[in-house]
Amino acid sequence: MNTTQKSKFPQVVIIGGGFGGLEVAKQLEDAPVEVLMLDKHNYHTFQPLLYQVATGSLESESIAFSLRKNFAGQKNFRFRIAEVSGVDMEHNKVLTNVGDIEYDYLVIATGSTTNFFGNKDIERFAMPMKSIPEALNLRYLILQNLEEASLKTTKEEREPYLTFVLVGAGPTGVELAGALAELRNHILDRDYPELQKSHMKVYLVDFLPKVLGPFSDEGSKAAKHFLTEMGVEVMLNVKVESYDGEEIKFEGGKSIKTKNVIWSAGVQGVVPAGIDKKDIEKGNRISVDSISRIKGSENVFAIGDVAAMIDDENPKGHPGVAQVAIQQGKLAGKNIISLIKGEPTEPFKYNDKGSLATIGRNKAIADLGKLKFQGFFAWLIWMFVHLISLLGFRNKVVVFVNWIGNYIANNGGARLIIRRFVPEELPKKDKQTAKAD
Amino acid sequence: MNTTQKSKFPQVVIIGGGFGGLEVAKQLEDAPVEVLMLDKHNYHTFQPLLYQVATGSLESESIAFSLRKNFAGQKNFRFRIAEVSGVDMEHNKVLTNVGDIEYDYLVIATGSTTNFFGNKDIERFAMPMKSIPEALNLRYLILQNLEEASLKTTKEEREPYLTFVLVGAGPTGVELAGALAELRNHILDRDYPELQKSHMKVYLVDFLPKVLGPFSDEGSKAAKHFLTEMGVEVMLNVKVESYDGEEIKFEGGKSIKTKNVIWSAGVQGVVPAGIDKKDIEKGNRISVDSISRIKGSENVFAIGDVAAMIDDENPKGHPGVAQVAIQQGKLAGKNIISLIKGEPTEPFKYNDKGSLATIGRNKAIADLGKLKFQGFFAWLIWMFVHLISLLGFRNKVVVFVNWIGNYIANNGGARLIIRRFVPEELPKKDKQTAKAD
Repeated sequence: MNTTQKSKFPQVVIIGGGFGGLEVAKQLEDAPVEVLMLDKHNYHTFQPLLYQVATGSLESESIAFSLRKNFAGQKNFRFRIAEVSGVDMEHNKVLTNVGDIEYDYLVIATGSTTNFFGNKDIERFAMPMKSIPEALNLRYLILQNLEEASLKTTKEEREPYLTFVLVGAGPTGVELAGALAELRNHILDRDYPELQKSHMKVYLVDFLPKVLGPFSDEGSKAAKHFLTEMGVEVMLNVKVESYDGEEIKFEGGKSIKTKNVIWSAGVQGVVPAGIDKKDIEKGNRISVDSISRIKGSENVFAIGDVAAMIDDENPKGHPGVAQVAIQQGKLAGKNIISLIKGEPTEPFKYNDKGSLATIGRNKAIADLGKLKFQGFFAWLIWMFVHLISLLGFRNKVVVFVNWIGNYIANNGGARLIIRRFVPEELPKKDKQTAKAD
Repeated sequence: MNTTQKSKFPQVVIIGGGFGGLEVAKQLEDAPVEVLMLDKHNYHTFQPLLYQVATGSLESESIAFSLRKNFAGQKNFRFRIAEVSGVDMEHNKVLTNVGDIEYDYLVIATGSTTNFFGNKDIERFAMPMKSIPEALNLRYLILQNLEEASLKTTKEEREPYLTFVLVGAGPTGVELAGALAELRNHILDRDYPELQKSHMKVYLVDFLPKVLGPFSDEGSKAAKHFLTEMGVEVMLNVKVESYDGEEIKFEGGKSIKTKNVIWSAGVQGVVPAGIDKKDIEKGNRISVDSISRIKGSENVFAIGDVAAMIDDENPKGHPGVAQVAIQQGKLAGKNIISLIKGEPTEPFKYNDKGSLATIGRNKAIADLGKLKFQGFFAWLIWMFVHLISLLGFRNKVVVFVNWIGNYIANNGGARLIIRRFVPEELPKKDKQTAKAD
């Protein structure tokens, strides 16, 4: 194929166009290399806003940006839609559904996917939300179940369709819980005159004793307070036992009848085949050294969610957040240039800029180093940071217009079911190797 | 189900939330009736801009608007997502996948779908574009084939992926041909450095001797001139014989190798089962009287594309355009109120406001009665009319922002493949009865 033509420049192959992969390619813009990026989608996904796609307040395409278009001006950049089946490190090849691709340097930036911890039933019946197709499936399921509920005549029949159980009280679960609570409080009886607010229930479940685990205690407490105020039932220290599509059961005997279980209780790295098992750490992450290089390799890097950079200061590696991927990507790009030039490389040092999470209208949590605050001002900062981080001027404007519109009208966006979600007919999970996603 | 509860007011059931159905419901806002709208989607589709969704310059959700949200303030309005399987006129019932629904008055506003004129191979391999899921499928196919072409090493291998044959030179075909020509002229080699403009071909085929058949000769000639100028090969007086997914054959022996055939050569009404065969006119349209009522019925109306209101002045009925549906819908609503009140009804009189079609940047055709003009000013009018006709302030702003952005950057929008289009796995055609669309 075209891309395996021999070039006079070293070929850098990047698997994944997420936050990390983008930075690597950008760093290499003026370097004497050929860059080839592979991704199963032709777009970058702005994952922090996936939950707003899932609840129908943002259109999916406003949080996506074409990878080809993003790099249209970069002369040494090429892109392929490709599903990577494995890496042949001995022969410096990536194995894909569009042929084998040779590399001189490889950056694995495949990110993470939902971790169901081996529970097949939960994997089958609960909804994940790690990609745009998954967020759309979730949106369609939520809206279809509201439609279904409006057809039922008794409270008992309606209940499971109007009960939402979010497992995992990290930022994703918390933000989704807030958005669903707002849907109930402000939209439900306007859009569905047959339904009543009091019939819709939102549960947020975690086996840890606090919401927003990695946040400060102050932030965590405020988040729990906001959620409770909005009518979310927060269930902490609770472990899920099983879910069969009808009823979720918890350790200790409690159970809830629901058609809507959303699983954001864990992630795992998406590791291509061909990586030595001994290099795989907890959470299915690839063990890397201080320059993000796979231990024992000269030319293969892993960055972001799929990498575990474990040292004395970070015995569990770095958190799976965009900032780590961005900073590791930037440095990996620089270090590849240094390696090519025979110059010394620079070790990674994480600059933690802090954490933000939003619960709803005027309600957010900001943990910015020693600066901790909650409420309206945190919410403004959350919006500002997310807007400037979105790729593309058009996307920024469209999301901004949506937010302003939603804020004024307090009616939370468009809520469209573009394609009906039929679990048996459409793949629910956006797998690395899924054919139709 | 909830909706069959007996009410003291007559129940008006509207099948379809298109241009016509919307107007009926709006007219009945303050009338002493219960309105129930059924649609297989939960949104209204602004069909005139489907082609921009197909070429990736508009996001699908910006030309859709939630039907529930649109009528959230109308007290007597209810909505159901439902697939209508038939009408039982004897017992005043609509048969649907969510149960039978009784009506006192029924308005069939189901619109039209693609007409392949019985050619099963063409139906199987050519792409229709009458709904948002279909427009998205078409977009994904176009973009996937550009990706595929970029993997091929020889011109011969690339050619079928880069050849686009549009059958039917009505507004849809002409607008799509223009948009594809712009994709080639301004985007192809920027987004796909492996490809060259000269390798991409756009053909517009019609068996009639002119493009934009219903337009004035002046408008038609200008459209053909614009298209040719932009590099579209216009083939008139040419009839398609067959298409097998690889090669399209024309009467007289000519053929073109292509993976992309888009069929906009005809439409047919979507008639629910249960309508007497003798009441079905050419083009699968329901024969109606001067107040849009099915002949012989007291309380069943058909409006818009699915209706044929044939009289001496209109021996073929009215054209299948939004304006006819809107005006018939408005009048049907009024006449239903008159019938309920026992007042005289008013016959339909079509007020033809003229036709607009756009070919590309600064290039459009306006036939507004005696006023005929082409070019930049027609293009401004085209944009203005489409913007004000879009449902929802948010959609207007988002589309406007997109158009401004596309105009300045001349790079035609986002071009995202959100879900891979796999013909064997996803339903290509958005049928009235399709399960997953």
